Amino acid sequence: MTDARTLYPLGDQLGSVTLIQHAGDDKMIANAARVSFGGDSDAPLNARDEKLIRYLLRHQHGSPFEHNMITFKVICPIFVDRQWVRHRAGVSKNETSGRYVEQQERNFQPPSFRRQAPSNRQASVEDDGTLDQAEAARVWEEAWKAAYGAYQTLLGLSVTREQARGVLPQSLYTESYYTFNVRSLLHFIGLRDHDGAQYEMRLYARALAELAEPLFPVTFREWRALVAEQAH
Amino acid sequence: MTDARTLYPLGDQLGSVTLIQHAGDDKMIANAARVSFGGDSDAPLNARDEKLIRYLLRHQHGSPFEHNMITFKVICPIFVDRQWVRHRAGVSKNETSGRYVEQQERNFQPPSFRRQAPSNRQASVEDDGTLDQAEAARVWEEAWKAAYGAYQTLLGLSVTREQARGVLPQSLYTESYYTFNVRSLLHFIGLRDHDGAQYEMRLYARALAELAEPLFPVTFREWRALVAEQAH
Amino acid sequence: MTDARTLYPLGDQLGSVTLIQHAGDDKMIANAARVSFGGDSDAPLNARDEKLIRYLLRHQHGSPFEHNMITFKVICPIFVDRQWVRHRAGVSKNETSGRYVEQQERNFQPPSFRRQAPSNRQASVEDDGTLDQAEAARVWEEAWKAAYGAYQTLLGLSVTREQARGVLPQSLYTESYYTFNVRSLLHFIGLRDHDGAQYEMRLYARALAELAEPLFPVTFREWRALVAEQAH
Amino acid sequence: MTDARTLYPLGDQLGSVTLIQHAGDDKMIANAARVSFGGDSDAPLNARDEKLIRYLLRHQHGSPFEHNMITFKVICPIFVDRQWVRHRAGVSKNETSGRYVEQQERNFQPPSFRRQAPSNRQASVEDDGTLDQAEAARVWEEAWKAAYGAYQTLLGLSVTREQARGVLPQSLYTESYYTFNVRSLLHFIGLRDHDGAQYEMRLYARALAELAEPLFPVTFREWRALVAEQAH
Repeated sequence: MTDARTLYPLGDQLGSVTLIQHAGDDKMIANAARVSFGGDSDAPLNARDEKLIRYLLRHQHGSPFEHNMITFKVICPIFVDRQWVRHRAGVSKNETSGRYVEQQERNFQPPSFRRQAPSNRQASVEDDGTLDQAEAARVWEEAWKAAYGAYQTLLGLSVTREQARGVLPQSLYTESYYTFNVRSLLHFIGLRDHDGAQYEMRLYARALAELAEPLFPVTFREWRALVAEQAH
Repeated sequence: MTDARTLYPLGDQLGSVTLIQHAGDDKMIANAARVSFGGDSDAPLNARDEKLIRYLLRHQHGSPFEHNMITFKVICPIFVDRQWVRHRAGVSKNETSGRYVEQQERNFQPPSFRRQAPSNRQASVEDDGTLDQAEAARVWEEAWKAAYGAYQTLLGLSVTREQARGVLPQSLYTESYYTFNVRSLLHFIGLRDHDGAQYEMRLYARALAELAEPLFPVTFREWRALVAEQAH
Repeated sequence: MTDARTLYPLGDQLGSVTLIQHAGDDKMIANAARVSFGGDSDAPLNARDEKLIRYLLRHQHGSPFEHNMITFKVICPIFVDRQWVRHRAGVSKNETSGRYVEQQERNFQPPSFRRQAPSNRQASVEDDGTLDQAEAARVWEEAWKAAYGAYQTLLGLSVTREQARGVLPQSLYTESYYTFNVRSLLHFIGLRDHDGAQYEMRLYARALAELAEPLFPVTFREWRALVAEQAH
Repeated sequence: MTDARTLYPLGDQLGSVTLIQHAGDDKMIANAARVSFGGDSDAPLNARDEKLIRYLLRHQHGSPFEHNMITFKVICPIFVDRQWVRHRAGVSKNETSGRYVEQQERNFQPPSFRRQAPSNRQASVEDDGTLDQAEAARVWEEAWKAAYGAYQTLLGLSVTREQARGVLPQSLYTESYYTFNVRSLLHFIGLRDHDGAQYEMRLYARALAELAEPLFPVTFREWRALVAEQAH
């Protein structure tokens, strides 16, 4: 079932995105648009298809980009997943259940900490050297150990998993199948691999883009060109 | 792109449903559910997967049925398509544009006419022999010819296509790409291949089911068993 | 139930849009955004709220615009309605059933006909005086009479309504309740009151905007400013 | 804006559901259905409307239940909210941002702990007296204090809020505006005030039902009757 299974580990922090399956291609996008005038065909992708895809992206014709799908298996911290699930249209999800299984000892620990941005209340900036990275890492690790220890203690006291998980932090890794179509995927990447997004979220958005781009190369090329223009 | 291209002509009335592409299978449905407890695998479908699919259907766990897709090319009369588009969740569509192209001379003509149901205001019953089929067919055909003739005359007067199409009847065939996932497809078939649905609509719903069933045989088998039980 | 019932007849062509009910206002939009930082309040709308709404629109923060609703009763020709239903997200619809009731003799007749655009295949241009308006009107009216006559004849032959309606043209008026939220409404108006849209469709989109604007004046003002800027 | 502001505190555990606004009523549901045959009216709700609502619920006619809205302000633990957001269709949400504001010291602490169910892997059972409630409460409270202390320490080290929140547990309260329509609300309540749902989640589902029921009394009465029948 899962012919394509490209592992895309996100650094050494356990998080990963794996391509599980996909269907559709650039030609299918062109064909779905061409049904408007009975022009769909089995011929290979040509220059007119590429021009059409460019046109569709620039004129907000979104529906031809829905006749395809990409499924990813995603392992990410809960605080990332909670941003992810804000995207509803054209996104399907199944996730590990903390009611059903004992949560594994899998904790996201930031490889480096950032400072609060001075002006933008919801942003961060790189450490200018004044942040005590070692101490922050020590506090984080200790907090994780205390939390996971409390979880184990509660389970040992026979507390049900569905309650006990309440003490586990949002840095806990969770595991999901996520299915997108190209329309919902580009929307997601556009908002989540963006200056305004949290760095940890951006890494995931970029991983999705890198895995999906070879499957829909013309669409991604034209979409990136459009995004670059709009940024100016 | 379109390896699978099964033609499923609907009688001699031109209408057709063609399977264009698909992804996912019964195993993928089981895997999407098993991610709940880290139990997804590459092993072939087994008896426990079948039991799980049965359980999911009977407990309204819909999301595992979303990690897949099926695209159909559908040629149907406009009055059927107008019922079809009521279904929005998990359904994508692109359709021939009557603004862009001149509408072809493709008219759905009922192979037989039905009578209004005596008690149910929105239903019909088979002709008991008292309906003048030949006369009805003649009226229908003449109406189509008059309408299509008016359309041609308007185009000949240089009236724009987007206005001129206004005189074309709802028996005109239209052509669409429709993409479903198994969840939205079963929902559609459940409502549209149903006693309460219009016969012409049911034929299409059945065609979708016949094309999709071999791709997800366990899911369809268990779903049909459930529907049969609930009907009692 | 329907305190507000503003009639907005679209010319003398029968079509109409009526505001049935609504909930939410500009303040609610600001409050939904301010829940991000616990800043929602009962105070009246102020300058900071207006600035926030402007910011939300310009940074694609769509979700705060979903906590409201507007219901319209719409009477429009079927060819307009078929464009309308392409919009699925955040739009709810109930429509007159041609299976349930006999279709009334209500036909949209264009007050003036347009010519096919010479370059843009899916557009039209104003008549430059060379189009025989009177003849086109005569052909249209005659086509309607023939079609409606055939419909009546079929009913007279005891043909069921759900089949007989097949001969009725797309200029037939249909009647629906449509419910939007402000997000889906602005999306709709942006695409359908647009140069690329069919003139008949644009009239409806404008009617929706005129009815909704007094209910969300700041949102509409800021949205119009943004659209105007992007057009340059 | 928020005329109706009924406080519904969930025990002494801080969690709450507040009705913020609503629109539509049982009559509007009947009217939306009656547009099918041009039968909508301004008359008060009558016995035929009630019968119609009953019929709609029993025949899966969902769309008439979408022309209304209810907005709630919800304060719930993150582990509850993560179940909530699985429901996408017809649900809108805005939530407190842990990037934007410092998280308050608001922790859900279970008033009593339950044991893991012996047979059902994802369920819990009431304590039979063998669970050391006092010790579990102590462990939970200590875990919260350690986690919130670590959060404060990280902020004190100038770590950005968007990272620091990673150490906060899923028992942290979060605050959202949630908007439903009656269709999506009944679907939510049906799945989440259910034997199979986690007890903490059920309390919220029941709170929603209690607040919404007086606004749509006929719909809730008929829906409850249907659910009760199906349970047999």
